[in-house]
Amino acid sequence: MRKKIIISYDGTNYGGWQIQPNRNTIQEEIEKKLSMLYAWQKIRVEASGRTDAGVHAIAQTAHYDEPDCPNLNNEKILKAMNRMLPRDIRIIRIEDVSDDFHARFSVLGKTYVYVINSGIENAFNSKYSWHYNGFKNIYEVRKSLKILEGKQDFSSFTVERNEIDNPERVITEAKLVSRGTYHFLCFTGEGFLYKMVRSIVGSLVFVGAGKIDSSQFKDILLKKDRREAFDTAPPHGLFLLKVYYNDEEYGKYDLNDIPVLRVR
Amino acid sequence: MRKKIIISYDGTNYGGWQIQPNRNTIQEEIEKKLSMLYAWQKIRVEASGRTDAGVHAIAQTAHYDEPDCPNLNNEKILKAMNRMLPRDIRIIRIEDVSDDFHARFSVLGKTYVYVINSGIENAFNSKYSWHYNGFKNIYEVRKSLKILEGKQDFSSFTVERNEIDNPERVITEAKLVSRGTYHFLCFTGEGFLYKMVRSIVGSLVFVGAGKIDSSQFKDILLKKDRREAFDTAPPHGLFLLKVYYNDEEYGKYDLNDIPVLRVR
Repeated sequence: MRKKIIISYDGTNYGGWQIQPNRNTIQEEIEKKLSMLYAWQKIRVEASGRTDAGVHAIAQTAHYDEPDCPNLNNEKILKAMNRMLPRDIRIIRIEDVSDDFHARFSVLGKTYVYVINSGIENAFNSKYSWHYNGFKNIYEVRKSLKILEGKQDFSSFTVERNEIDNPERVITEAKLVSRGTYHFLCFTGEGFLYKMVRSIVGSLVFVGAGKIDSSQFKDILLKKDRREAFDTAPPHGLFLLKVYYNDEEYGKYDLNDIPVLRVR
Repeated sequence: MRKKIIISYDGTNYGGWQIQPNRNTIQEEIEKKLSMLYAWQKIRVEASGRTDAGVHAIAQTAHYDEPDCPNLNNEKILKAMNRMLPRDIRIIRIEDVSDDFHARFSVLGKTYVYVINSGIENAFNSKYSWHYNGFKNIYEVRKSLKILEGKQDFSSFTVERNEIDNPERVITEAKLVSRGTYHFLCFTGEGFLYKMVRSIVGSLVFVGAGKIDSSQFKDILLKKDRREAFDTAPPHGLFLLKVYYNDEEYGKYDLNDIPVLRVR
């Protein structure tokens, strides 16, 4: 039986999703605990995609194939897993899916949200937002986000790209929601290049700070050259908010799922 | 010059406030970084009191005496410290105080808040609240909290107490604020015994779950015997919210300062 699992994680203490030597990873934690659950049989978990070291997920999606085992229902699996897993990784939901569901290949799209805090930093918001003073040129930021929508060559906003890969991606919605001193930069698209959202945000903060305007931001995009853009934004402000597998749910997300940390 | 500092910290990765061998502590981090700031002179930081391993602080208060040093103003100290400190410890404010101010001896009172989540647990709220299903007998919880107000012998709600110490403390306000699935148990008092709030909460959840009522809760208090109470609640739901040094501010706190983590 194939199982679909929805996972939330605080990326702070992990080297990202994907298993790698010498670093704690989310995938390793989950595979290890699933293996314990299924009498030490090896379980392979496939996610919708990797997230980098330090990046958070509100609803990462993955699947695994259940081995022959005693009758464990989904509720029991969820409870047992959450008892074994560290508190910064939680299984939110688990459901049976057909064998043709694939967490990575069946994806229609995803929403990433990058959180910027232009207010006071405390020990809690500091881990879930990028503290950036003077993000205030909201009108120009909104214009810049509109420029990103549609099919674009995002060569300027990715790193370590393999030259043969297609650098075009479709962003169906790029928008800004501001609440108090928090600015949520929301990107929904069919696919994203490596470090694409963080690269975009790294240049968008210069628009927000009034150092460049939206037409200069557009120039960066059109140059199709990574060297034209500014530094990549740090990982701790980035959330994988939702992964879409069917047309009805595509692009429907709730920003309230992002931890909103009031500031003193 | 004596400096008063307000500190926020996420206690998750620390062995509490007070310096101890073989564990990372908040005090050690701050003293180390202050020492770096003041050209490696030894600086001693005195807090309003300790917090235990895993307990968080929204506004811990401490003081230190500035050594002879080049002219660093408070804004510079704050910025430099927050650049050097790990992100889960933040200096919120720094101000000059007179030499007779003492972070521990001048305290008039404190507010602690314990957060219970009876909704779905995710990777974020799981670190800042105790996930406890079935906390719903709100009326009896409120009655139990009223019983705690005033001067009481809290022997039933403390651990490792030195028999010669006075087990009486004054709680000026004990109240419950519920928001969605989150329950904030707020305790304001002139002083607290070791693990007192967590011991109280450990028994209050049995009231919330309907396993005992407020008169049985009162019996536990009146027995003045730790063995009558239930287990101590875990540290990760507890926040030191505010420390009071003058009558005008006493008991005035804002629950919005607690990280409120919306749940999916």
